[in-house]
Amino acid sequence: VDGKGAVSHPAQDLDDVVHQRTRLGILAVLSEVESVEFTYLQRALELTGGNLSRHLQVLDEAELVRIQKGYEGRRPRTWIRITRAGRRALSHEVRVLKGIVGSLEASLASGGR
Amino acid sequence: VDGKGAVSHPAQDLDDVVHQRTRLGILAVLSEVESVEFTYLQRALELTGGNLSRHLQVLDEAELVRIQKGYEGRRPRTWIRITRAGRRALSHEVRVLKGIVGSLEASLASGGR
Repeated sequence: VDGKGAVSHPAQDLDDVVHQRTRLGILAVLSEVESVEFTYLQRALELTGGNLSRHLQVLDEAELVRIQKGYEGRRPRTWIRITRAGRRALSHEVRVLKGIVGSLEASLASGGR
Repeated sequence: VDGKGAVSHPAQDLDDVVHQRTRLGILAVLSEVESVEFTYLQRALELTGGNLSRHLQVLDEAELVRIQKGYEGRRPRTWIRITRAGRRALSHEVRVLKGIVGSLEASLASGGR
């Protein structure tokens, strides 16, 4: 294939804030529940606390999640929930992924020919 | 949700070498053709040469693509093709994405309740 007629690939519509593996996992878990506790997310995604914190910060800055610190008895707890914008961003990601997966299934099945 | 009964999320099965937005786009384009010229990929994915080179290097090191330098007339050209391992890695990515997309569609449709 030469350079003629190239059009932008759908992968360019993916937003790295949402698409990145760990953040996609975080948002996917959050989409299923009202809110989750930090340590639950940590276990569900097999992340270190530091790693999870860093990704949550990216999502928080993009206003895709809301983070609430509080106490359960005397124990400090952090609760995280997905925002409406987070749900919208995740829906967009799903739409784009469906398109990519659909054409990939076709091209992989035909062996690229 | 508390920490009980947490199981590893499918997003953990995604390989960042393949999943990363730009590299997923590169592999998707490559899966459809025998081989492509560097500048074609650059235009299709709207990347700078340096950015494309960097991602191709990651894919080359993982042996997911093969890069061949040559000439077309007197003009230096770089041709890229996907390897069998690349095709396998892409199939794995597609399988995992389908699972994630399927459960996300369900949870997004139900509004997370």
